[in-house]
Amino acid sequence: MRRKNIVTIGGGTGSFMLLSGLKKYPVNLAAIVSMTDDGGSTGVLRDELGVLPPGDVRQCLVALSDSSKELRELMNYRFAEGGLKGHSFGNLFLSALEKINHSFSKGVEKAARILDVRGEVIPVTETDIVLCMDLQNGVKLAGEEEINHNRDLQRAGIKKFYLRPRAKASSKAIKQLLAADLIVIGPGNHYCSIAPNFLVDGIPQAIRKSKAKVVYNCNLVNKSSHTDGYFLEDYVTALNGLIGAERIDFVTFNSRRPDAKLIKKYAKTKDLLVKVRDLRGDHNYQIIMANLLSNSKPKFSAADAIAAQRSFIRHDGAKLAKTLMSILQS
Amino acid sequence: MRRKNIVTIGGGTGSFMLLSGLKKYPVNLAAIVSMTDDGGSTGVLRDELGVLPPGDVRQCLVALSDSSKELRELMNYRFAEGGLKGHSFGNLFLSALEKINHSFSKGVEKAARILDVRGEVIPVTETDIVLCMDLQNGVKLAGEEEINHNRDLQRAGIKKFYLRPRAKASSKAIKQLLAADLIVIGPGNHYCSIAPNFLVDGIPQAIRKSKAKVVYNCNLVNKSSHTDGYFLEDYVTALNGLIGAERIDFVTFNSRRPDAKLIKKYAKTKDLLVKVRDLRGDHNYQIIMANLLSNSKPKFSAADAIAAQRSFIRHDGAKLAKTLMSILQS
Repeated sequence: MRRKNIVTIGGGTGSFMLLSGLKKYPVNLAAIVSMTDDGGSTGVLRDELGVLPPGDVRQCLVALSDSSKELRELMNYRFAEGGLKGHSFGNLFLSALEKINHSFSKGVEKAARILDVRGEVIPVTETDIVLCMDLQNGVKLAGEEEINHNRDLQRAGIKKFYLRPRAKASSKAIKQLLAADLIVIGPGNHYCSIAPNFLVDGIPQAIRKSKAKVVYNCNLVNKSSHTDGYFLEDYVTALNGLIGAERIDFVTFNSRRPDAKLIKKYAKTKDLLVKVRDLRGDHNYQIIMANLLSNSKPKFSAADAIAAQRSFIRHDGAKLAKTLMSILQS
Repeated sequence: MRRKNIVTIGGGTGSFMLLSGLKKYPVNLAAIVSMTDDGGSTGVLRDELGVLPPGDVRQCLVALSDSSKELRELMNYRFAEGGLKGHSFGNLFLSALEKINHSFSKGVEKAARILDVRGEVIPVTETDIVLCMDLQNGVKLAGEEEINHNRDLQRAGIKKFYLRPRAKASSKAIKQLLAADLIVIGPGNHYCSIAPNFLVDGIPQAIRKSKAKVVYNCNLVNKSSHTDGYFLEDYVTALNGLIGAERIDFVTFNSRRPDAKLIKKYAKTKDLLVKVRDLRGDHNYQIIMANLLSNSKPKFSAADAIAAQRSFIRHDGAKLAKTLMSILQS
């Protein structure tokens, strides 16, 4: 029987978790990765070296790496002092390979070989882009970091959400989307990890054209001032809007209530749990309810450290992958 | 037949060249590496991260690496812009591994595994040391970089040459020296790459005790203001002095005259060719004359870039290794 093709779309921690889970199944994996990060170590490298953003790609490479635990740990190691402070070693690794090969994509291919990566990690575009958002109140935000930290976005209302300059999708990304059996979107920061992929010319078109089943892994919590009060349905509407068609066939949704203490912790910053408006509603998509929650206390190896930093109410990669495999085989 | 054990003592470019040549023979190789570098990228990392000096170790690891050309190139890649400017990627690699493993030696072992290193690369000591030199005129020099650039050293005369604090040799280095069939010293910067190894407690003792044949690869050129006017015999006397016994059995010496243009170029900075005072003299060692000169125009891959930067009149690793193998088998 032909191996099935799964293509993920996302960036950052969400993709790391998802790919770590999917990696254990005998499928062909391709990870399409957002290229708008401009914060932290990645932002400094973009500014100073003129490279493309390595951070999200690094996480996907590490997730799919069959190399030693040591090497994976090393890739996620962050320097803590001096001029290197905050730099992830893996980011330096990708930036050096980009410089040597005079191409980010070629650098990523070499990195994949060195790290013995199973599957393919594909930067969504090779264009050097800035994520931009114009608000209804006249404010113009430039850069993912600026958008991510803006507390006014939802209140003011979004007028325009775009990339500068316009960017063309990597031909590999298009090819993979057209050959996919399953396209898996998310989870992740809606405006800063997931949506930017759909602003790249060619990605929505390829998803519309693809015969794949399309799954959205609904986020567990809303992001304060960005998606406050969002229900599952709102995320799907937003994504179908970005795709330009009601293309989402399945939504995975966590049915297990997180620990009360964690909810309280999140509630302080208004990151409240995502709910479903109408479970029995007349959807064009199927909602798959399952326990998708990670119930382990964050007990991370350094290789997983990134996932630990950001999210305590979080998906379990193995549980999510199992659910996705059942959708693939359905 | 038992594989023979060759142990090299040195640091930097000289060791890189030597090990690249020896690597092609079926022998057990161990490289003992100087740990007093405090210039350039290495110096910044020592200062800012509090790590041990990675630069010389990196060159030896790359020389003995059986990994892909890509990975070796990457290790010698230097960032050219921004806050990372001047840092060799391989230095960052070793420093990150030291931090993760809380030990330089353990980091080097992990690096050797990742880089698929044939043989062993052994930092001469794990003590964090500063190379010091007190001159007869009362000037006290602290740090390899300061000593290396001092133009007054030979004129003023050296009163004391030492490490601060005193340092104990790595037990692995001692073990290898005691088990060696051939101990190979140099070539390299006399005061800043070769001699510092002999200031480490245990190294001279182990060489005196070892049953190995001891070879000194005599430098091709003298270093201005450091070893101006040195003959082969002077280097041997200096090294035997450091060892504390007339332990040197063989000296390899280049018999081929370099290109006149190169000699002229060197003469400008007073780096003149080393000569032999008395070829037929009554030595306790044998002088092996051979064409050891690299006659290729420096046509380096990025992986060899370091060797290219520093020296145009230089040894040919393959020719030198062949000569050493004939000594080993004699």
